[in-house]
Amino acid sequence: MPKPMPNFAAATPADQPDDLLPVLPDLSNAHLVTGLQRKLDEKTKPLGSLGALEALALRIGVVLGTEAPALREPQLVVFAGDHGLAARGVSAYPSDVTWQMVENFLAGGACVSVLARQHGIRLTVVDCGVRHDFVPAGGPAVRDGLVVRKIAGGTADALEQPAMTIDQCREAIANGRALLRDLPGNALLLGEMGIGNTSAASLLQARLTGLDIAECTGSGTGLDPAAVARKAGILRAVLERHTGATEPLAALAAFGGFEMATMLGAVWQAALENRVIVVDGFITTAVVLVAQALQPAVLQRCVFAHRSGEAGHAKLLQHLGAAPLLDMGLRLGEGSGAALAWPLLTSACVVLAEMASFTSAGVSQKESTSSQT
Amino acid sequence: MPKPMPNFAAATPADQPDDLLPVLPDLSNAHLVTGLQRKLDEKTKPLGSLGALEALALRIGVVLGTEAPALREPQLVVFAGDHGLAARGVSAYPSDVTWQMVENFLAGGACVSVLARQHGIRLTVVDCGVRHDFVPAGGPAVRDGLVVRKIAGGTADALEQPAMTIDQCREAIANGRALLRDLPGNALLLGEMGIGNTSAASLLQARLTGLDIAECTGSGTGLDPAAVARKAGILRAVLERHTGATEPLAALAAFGGFEMATMLGAVWQAALENRVIVVDGFITTAVVLVAQALQPAVLQRCVFAHRSGEAGHAKLLQHLGAAPLLDMGLRLGEGSGAALAWPLLTSACVVLAEMASFTSAGVSQKESTSSQT
Repeated sequence: MPKPMPNFAAATPADQPDDLLPVLPDLSNAHLVTGLQRKLDEKTKPLGSLGALEALALRIGVVLGTEAPALREPQLVVFAGDHGLAARGVSAYPSDVTWQMVENFLAGGACVSVLARQHGIRLTVVDCGVRHDFVPAGGPAVRDGLVVRKIAGGTADALEQPAMTIDQCREAIANGRALLRDLPGNALLLGEMGIGNTSAASLLQARLTGLDIAECTGSGTGLDPAAVARKAGILRAVLERHTGATEPLAALAAFGGFEMATMLGAVWQAALENRVIVVDGFITTAVVLVAQALQPAVLQRCVFAHRSGEAGHAKLLQHLGAAPLLDMGLRLGEGSGAALAWPLLTSACVVLAEMASFTSAGVSQKESTSSQT
Repeated sequence: MPKPMPNFAAATPADQPDDLLPVLPDLSNAHLVTGLQRKLDEKTKPLGSLGALEALALRIGVVLGTEAPALREPQLVVFAGDHGLAARGVSAYPSDVTWQMVENFLAGGACVSVLARQHGIRLTVVDCGVRHDFVPAGGPAVRDGLVVRKIAGGTADALEQPAMTIDQCREAIANGRALLRDLPGNALLLGEMGIGNTSAASLLQARLTGLDIAECTGSGTGLDPAAVARKAGILRAVLERHTGATEPLAALAAFGGFEMATMLGAVWQAALENRVIVVDGFITTAVVLVAQALQPAVLQRCVFAHRSGEAGHAKLLQHLGAAPLLDMGLRLGEGSGAALAWPLLTSACVVLAEMASFTSAGVSQKESTSSQT
């Protein structure tokens, strides 16, 4: 770890920065980091004693470009889509659960609905390619809380052909960029729903990191060990079917879902706008992997909410050098982990904004320990 | 792990359940646990997919004795006291920081003040034995947010004599029980302030778990490695000075602080009243260790907020069989970790209360994976 990366110098034009995926500016800013750390060090606490919360404050400050970061109007977007590969029995649940859960999100009864409400996070669901019509044909493509940006009613079976064409992939990315532009706020929390999409994430992980597919394959929504082994066998065959899909976008088209391609566009737009991107579990991290393979600078904008219970996630986080905030064995997806971790981001900001300094509070500084007996 | 425990069957009368420390009822309730787990399993999510959040929901439900737990009026109490041993140079900060930080808590500028405010948690500071007068002599022993229950202006130097007498220890415990009775709500978040109190916690850990003091000693507020070694040497001498203090209350009197004894009383009262007890870092966990050594049933009421960066804390949690919610390298104390983790407890409750069931949401259940190909 990390394994050698595929050689993206040989990228096809589709993988080069272009109007669809413009160059992400480098956010490195030593001056700002120094200022933020000094501000933290002047707070009434031992140096570094807030641990990962201090790193989080630095990250948010750098993304928002200020020593006084304030998060506003957080948006949790659940990208939904169906997967042709689901018909191969790679999931414990039928594909219909995708649209049923979308209805559950909209009705406010899903886990992510409940947690978003708890924390005042606005929830938007995007039909990126669900095998179901949520709005009448010909009517306006919108319902309260739902945005319809459907490429097709599910991807193709990746064992037979690429899950989507490059054109569909680019259209989905453009959709993601456009819908993010319409959302207010300076933080994007990533969520997803799509029966079969842990398979897509495992395939992307295996192809883009070089790990064996068996190391990337887990139980998803709850397969038993025999079914996981069967799933890994199917995924191995899918990888062999698409040996040429080595570039990030080609891999995304071959293995991904419409919800993942649309999410990639939203991530890209959020990165361009310097929004804080809160990454959830295995599927959203796989989308960030694709983005990182295109331009590593995307990671400068990301906060990783948690390490999930899904088998490949820990290695995927390690590959990205990500230090997640929570480690609670979650494996629900939806953006539930991102919503659960959200108050930690707010805490990092209020610590910066509201804690007193040693000087303002009249608290004595640390003594020189060398003078002690 | 776990090491053999000292034999408390030989406890002195001071360690037996009595009016000061009445027997804590056993909360084991298989029927309620089954009901809570069934309720979680009927929610629209794969079985067990909320990981540690499900265990947390079960814990809160069992403490509050209901399948529909709701947390109300959470109370964070910061117990403050000074330590005679601090004069030996066991801390990087001077003892004056204890009272200065109390003023900072009251002014709202400390980390725990900021986080409690963020989450709507009421903060109370208790002067259990600070070397400073916060209220004029003869006046009412109260200021806004402060309760004065002072045993003395700091403990004695434990290298010379027990930090407190058994009578002082019992008085502090009674104070803790009484003040908790006056606080509303059904959740107690533990906090503390006392320069020198990581030393007291290390001593209690070594004595009550049998670990060597070197394994229990850390950098506290920020000692360098040489100073940590010096600190461990001093603590070893303190342990040798009090070889007879093997029972929990005798050890607490020999090594503890007034803030720790008062906290023990508050923990006991909270346990008797079936409040959820949210344990913070190393010092508060050491107090729970004393309580657990007296009656293990106290642990049924505890939620461990985080694994801190202080050296002995991980082993102390392991000894108690505790699975903390966060692991962020915090080492600030004050109750800051308890406040930071608080939204997770609220999330566990809203998931139980507000998530839809498969039936109510019309979502399909899991397929039998054995029928899949």
